[in-house]
Amino acid sequence: MRVDGRKANELREVEMIPNFIKHAEGSVYMCIGETKVICTASVEERVPPFLRGSGKGWVTAEYSMLPRATQTRTIRESSKGKVGGRTMEIQRLIGRSLRSVISLERLGERTLWLDCDVIQADGGTRTASITGAYVAAVQALWGLVQNKSLSRLPITDFLAATSVGIVDGVPCLDLCYQEDSKAQVDMNVVMTGTGKYVEVQGTGEESPFSADELTQLLALAKEGTIQLVEKQRELLGEAAALIGGQEHGVNKKGNLAVE
Amino acid sequence: MRVDGRKANELREVEMIPNFIKHAEGSVYMCIGETKVICTASVEERVPPFLRGSGKGWVTAEYSMLPRATQTRTIRESSKGKVGGRTMEIQRLIGRSLRSVISLERLGERTLWLDCDVIQADGGTRTASITGAYVAAVQALWGLVQNKSLSRLPITDFLAATSVGIVDGVPCLDLCYQEDSKAQVDMNVVMTGTGKYVEVQGTGEESPFSADELTQLLALAKEGTIQLVEKQRELLGEAAALIGGQEHGVNKKGNLAVE
Amino acid sequence: MRVDGRKANELREVEMIPNFIKHAEGSVYMCIGETKVICTASVEERVPPFLRGSGKGWVTAEYSMLPRATQTRTIRESSKGKVGGRTMEIQRLIGRSLRSVISLERLGERTLWLDCDVIQADGGTRTASITGAYVAAVQALWGLVQNKSLSRLPITDFLAATSVGIVDGVPCLDLCYQEDSKAQVDMNVVMTGTGKYVEVQGTGEESPFSADELTQLLALAKEGTIQLVEKQRELLGEAAALIGGQEHGVNKKGNLAVE
Amino acid sequence: MRVDGRKANELREVEMIPNFIKHAEGSVYMCIGETKVICTASVEERVPPFLRGSGKGWVTAEYSMLPRATQTRTIRESSKGKVGGRTMEIQRLIGRSLRSVISLERLGERTLWLDCDVIQADGGTRTASITGAYVAAVQALWGLVQNKSLSRLPITDFLAATSVGIVDGVPCLDLCYQEDSKAQVDMNVVMTGTGKYVEVQGTGEESPFSADELTQLLALAKEGTIQLVEKQRELLGEAAALIGGQEHGVNKKGNLAVE
Amino acid sequence: MRVDGRKANELREVEMIPNFIKHAEGSVYMCIGETKVICTASVEERVPPFLRGSGKGWVTAEYSMLPRATQTRTIRESSKGKVGGRTMEIQRLIGRSLRSVISLERLGERTLWLDCDVIQADGGTRTASITGAYVAAVQALWGLVQNKSLSRLPITDFLAATSVGIVDGVPCLDLCYQEDSKAQVDMNVVMTGTGKYVEVQGTGEESPFSADELTQLLALAKEGTIQLVEKQRELLGEAAALIGGQEHGVNKKGNLAVE
Amino acid sequence: MRVDGRKANELREVEMIPNFIKHAEGSVYMCIGETKVICTASVEERVPPFLRGSGKGWVTAEYSMLPRATQTRTIRESSKGKVGGRTMEIQRLIGRSLRSVISLERLGERTLWLDCDVIQADGGTRTASITGAYVAAVQALWGLVQNKSLSRLPITDFLAATSVGIVDGVPCLDLCYQEDSKAQVDMNVVMTGTGKYVEVQGTGEESPFSADELTQLLALAKEGTIQLVEKQRELLGEAAALIGGQEHGVNKKGNLAVE
Repeated sequence: MRVDGRKANELREVEMIPNFIKHAEGSVYMCIGETKVICTASVEERVPPFLRGSGKGWVTAEYSMLPRATQTRTIRESSKGKVGGRTMEIQRLIGRSLRSVISLERLGERTLWLDCDVIQADGGTRTASITGAYVAAVQALWGLVQNKSLSRLPITDFLAATSVGIVDGVPCLDLCYQEDSKAQVDMNVVMTGTGKYVEVQGTGEESPFSADELTQLLALAKEGTIQLVEKQRELLGEAAALIGGQEHGVNKKGNLAVE
Repeated sequence: MRVDGRKANELREVEMIPNFIKHAEGSVYMCIGETKVICTASVEERVPPFLRGSGKGWVTAEYSMLPRATQTRTIRESSKGKVGGRTMEIQRLIGRSLRSVISLERLGERTLWLDCDVIQADGGTRTASITGAYVAAVQALWGLVQNKSLSRLPITDFLAATSVGIVDGVPCLDLCYQEDSKAQVDMNVVMTGTGKYVEVQGTGEESPFSADELTQLLALAKEGTIQLVEKQRELLGEAAALIGGQEHGVNKKGNLAVE
Repeated sequence: MRVDGRKANELREVEMIPNFIKHAEGSVYMCIGETKVICTASVEERVPPFLRGSGKGWVTAEYSMLPRATQTRTIRESSKGKVGGRTMEIQRLIGRSLRSVISLERLGERTLWLDCDVIQADGGTRTASITGAYVAAVQALWGLVQNKSLSRLPITDFLAATSVGIVDGVPCLDLCYQEDSKAQVDMNVVMTGTGKYVEVQGTGEESPFSADELTQLLALAKEGTIQLVEKQRELLGEAAALIGGQEHGVNKKGNLAVE
Repeated sequence: MRVDGRKANELREVEMIPNFIKHAEGSVYMCIGETKVICTASVEERVPPFLRGSGKGWVTAEYSMLPRATQTRTIRESSKGKVGGRTMEIQRLIGRSLRSVISLERLGERTLWLDCDVIQADGGTRTASITGAYVAAVQALWGLVQNKSLSRLPITDFLAATSVGIVDGVPCLDLCYQEDSKAQVDMNVVMTGTGKYVEVQGTGEESPFSADELTQLLALAKEGTIQLVEKQRELLGEAAALIGGQEHGVNKKGNLAVE
Repeated sequence: MRVDGRKANELREVEMIPNFIKHAEGSVYMCIGETKVICTASVEERVPPFLRGSGKGWVTAEYSMLPRATQTRTIRESSKGKVGGRTMEIQRLIGRSLRSVISLERLGERTLWLDCDVIQADGGTRTASITGAYVAAVQALWGLVQNKSLSRLPITDFLAATSVGIVDGVPCLDLCYQEDSKAQVDMNVVMTGTGKYVEVQGTGEESPFSADELTQLLALAKEGTIQLVEKQRELLGEAAALIGGQEHGVNKKGNLAVE
Repeated sequence: MRVDGRKANELREVEMIPNFIKHAEGSVYMCIGETKVICTASVEERVPPFLRGSGKGWVTAEYSMLPRATQTRTIRESSKGKVGGRTMEIQRLIGRSLRSVISLERLGERTLWLDCDVIQADGGTRTASITGAYVAAVQALWGLVQNKSLSRLPITDFLAATSVGIVDGVPCLDLCYQEDSKAQVDMNVVMTGTGKYVEVQGTGEESPFSADELTQLLALAKEGTIQLVEKQRELLGEAAALIGGQEHGVNKKGNLAVE
């Protein structure tokens, strides 16, 4: 029995409120348990210097926490004058994860900015950010399809993420903060809708883990991401039908999108 | 007739959702029209070096906007590595305003942090921040009274703020972004519940203004702040009764609070 | 009777030494009482990115204090690696104020930099900076007229600034440091030569103020700026005749300047 | 057949020159193929603020590359004025990894700094840094045992790291730069001498990977780390005998070290 | 014949206005030709951490130029967020030079800050800064003797500095900017009143120089510093009598100062 | 007798290992006694903005120390977020020195970056850096001649540097750290192969020095640099024959290089 009464393989309650921010091309208020993140997707019609003239686009992410997202107030990174290591690690992870299911060629020379701002933190903020940012990204790109800036959706698969870990010796899915802070092993897993790994990041700083334990954790993560992808599919409606089991980079259904 | 159909002396719709962030000692989701700000108040049991040993407390504010609070994405100040001039100006204004109605002596050697994070911007973010931060501050301080850390509420008056300006030659109350961006004169007014000025900041960069115009703008601001204070009073319930018409620095009712 | 023997509505002694810095296009050593500021105006033949190709110019200001302008040594902002909030607030104020009386269209695609460096501080450094920067600006722009880079002076009005405040309950003009540090209300007013307000910034952090008090302070400020404009007019000689009572943005006399 | 003629499960040539820097408490010049890293361990007799008075020590790492460690010159982070995301990610990884096999309780209130400076980069710099930093750490701590500052070696296990990846569809061990830059999947694995995982970081940004592929990569990583630990054991001589198969946190042999 | 009509061994006109800044413990407005520097000395009753408890004082310098001290406007170092290499080099030089004639033991645990702010630059700003800072330093320390904080003046010798260089093949004393910018060799020499070298910094970036040329330049520098020391002696009056021909570190006359 | 048994005019043992870093166009591992510096030269096919279109090239240097090059660990400048004054002073010195013997006209519009990274410090790191950087620079430029990017070697003379100083009253050549830290006078001298001075930087912060002492120090420095140039000549082989006694800027032998 876990601290909040869940079973070991049970996700916290998930809520995604779409179009939360009126100015953004895509946005979702992503809540999983008491963890709440505002994810927005912004389209900029230019790319960083290293891609100019390449015909390819770019996808990048930024992550931040409001000072009082945490139990005690955290100093703002803007006040400190620099972005910390944890933040950098997380925003690099979000960016890499999203790029794995977005075709930069088909995106064309534009940048998709994904901003994940944690309003309230209770464990799993980075995985909630990825799961929510995916939805915002699809909305923004679907908007480009609808206004005919793109002829088809440049998205090759679904994408969701969850944390897993070993707490009091028991492998568990979707750790809340109280569990996370005492976990012996902590792992974040990003998976596609077709069940492939995009990122596996496990750390046993407190206690190195065995191959068996790794196997159990990966199985839990798979259970969790399947449910999250299902939620995304419901929310995305029409656009969801254009994402799917296709090969990476060859989105057959997307092809049909506006034809 | 204004762009959104309001009369010249009409506020936009105001909504304040209290206790929006579970970790904070005080918090409110402050919405006025499409401008939305998360205001939190955090109590820290220490003061900056210049006040140590003085027996007095400190009240300070920080202000920020999410990158996509604005129509086009704004670069984060943490990424730029410094806090911009506009932000500094605003957070200094919020801090000064709140200090004008909080007795630092009665607060004791602790710091009250007020964080105002704009989720969505549509004009008047700084005045919405002040109006919302006041509510969060009262909640946090009321919490200190309730847990007997303070014997009475160290708040001497209500406090609210509004913007006014001259748009197409007409003095108007509570400008939305579209009005603000074309205003000839722009003024922010912070007032107490007893109708005194805490801050008057008017600028006629586009077009200097006359003494008459100044008089009209101040009258509109008074109308607006009276309504805002009324909303605050409703929301604060029990605590509101302990704030009032008393002299600055001599809160008689507050005295009675826990007696 | 004030600390230095002045009457409530009396300015300190004003001295403006023109052409103080040989390299600058305009410069004045602005002294009011013991407050001393070097103001220079520099013409740069380019504009910031947001104005390129617009045909319009830009006016911007920077403000700083020498470390020993103050009673105890202040750490340099260059050593701290960042410009503080107070400095930003002041330089934004100076820039806005000057832009209110300079026609950016007629200036053409060039930038006027106004640098205000406080050599010795004794209260009122920001208003002294505005009053002095105005003189340096006219000199620099008059130089452009004389060398035929401009066909007429792009200045629509005179501009001066003064501080006022309530000290020991008495509204006073032009506070020195000793008065300023104990004032209940502190206000800076920037006015044009034709008596219009450009900026009104009043703050009652210590003690909110009434509408009556505001009226008295504004009257004192008007008295002060009239005298300062008179000094500017004397100093500017020939160029002064081309500035005047004209409507904002329609400088009839300026029109005649080089015709 | 790989680009440098190796088999899929073959490490590059490994050389570790101990005591490379005379001033450091521990140091090794770690070379694997053409990747060369200077690893030093420094003992500082104090801990960061969050550990003062706790009786526990701290282990932290910094990582950097000389500007010309790379094929084209890289700008120094000191010139840019900030440490980049990749560097932060790597130094956090090195620190976490080393802390997993060092008992902070037994270390006592001192800090062990591990500096990994890449002199020449040819793939696998972060894993070479971990493998080398481990040796430098043992030397430094062994020095503390020898000078009786510590009664036994606070090291609970061996630790080594290697990269693995899928190149042209083939899972390979210890990628060189040329392989790394075209790998579909890239994974870094940190393991203990007793075969447990400390860190597993796999990324399929280019191409998500299956559970089968993950299994193959982990098997290769195990082969590699076993060989690296063997090299470490040879090099560490006398000190190596005090590290071993013991439970994490209960180093029985270490107990005997100086008894 | 030089560009400004001087002979090769002729200094520009020197003027030193003492007590230029009322707040500072020592100050001088140092002018040599068109180069103008405000030098202040500030006494702080504490020392940097590395000297706490040592009984010794510290002397340090900061140097800066107003943006319009130069022919075209220079960007402020505070705006750039960092102090440039040239500035650091110069302020380190000023600090070292002054420390060479001030006894840190006799100064006691206090810091003497020397601020040199160039108001107008026309070559030789660093040497003018040293010559002026010396005067400000003596004044400040003489003040400590007069208010009995020090029993005698902790100054062991006079100190002045000048630039020399080879211009159009001719060794010259005290280069103005026009000469400096085309000099083949540029040298700054800091000397004591007793004719010893404190700093010799010669650079032949444009054209390496011979031993003979070096000898001629050093002779010119000696001529110049003798005249500058004479000016300092006149200005310092009473205090000057307490500085002198004494051995370094054994100021016999100073001993008598207040006895 | 010196601390390490050398005579007053004796250099420490010198070793220069060429081609130490495989990626760099030129590199040398420069060792003098226990001071060890990795010097690399990198060719970049572009110049800074101020030289674009000028047809001239640029030579610039960067200097750094590994954290554990020193007896106690030094904090990285990248962690501090800024380059310190000492580092700036040194890298400016290295750059100026190298530019004195490289013809920027003949280099053409490219930049030569010289990176000097101190691996282990034992006094004289800046002079070792100059001596080593010269070798790396010749190698890199000789590479450009060999691949016909340049028609002749743009190097006008040899260049080496050494420190001298007065230790316990005795002028000595090539101070080690222990000597340097107690020297009364410290001087760095950069000389060409034809015996001219490029830089003379002497400082007597501890004790001003006489003209006689200066003469003795310069003589020692000449002895040292002659030996260092001899080592460079041996190492550079074929390329060395193209550098020589020619006038500055007119390299007759170089002319013959590829003809």
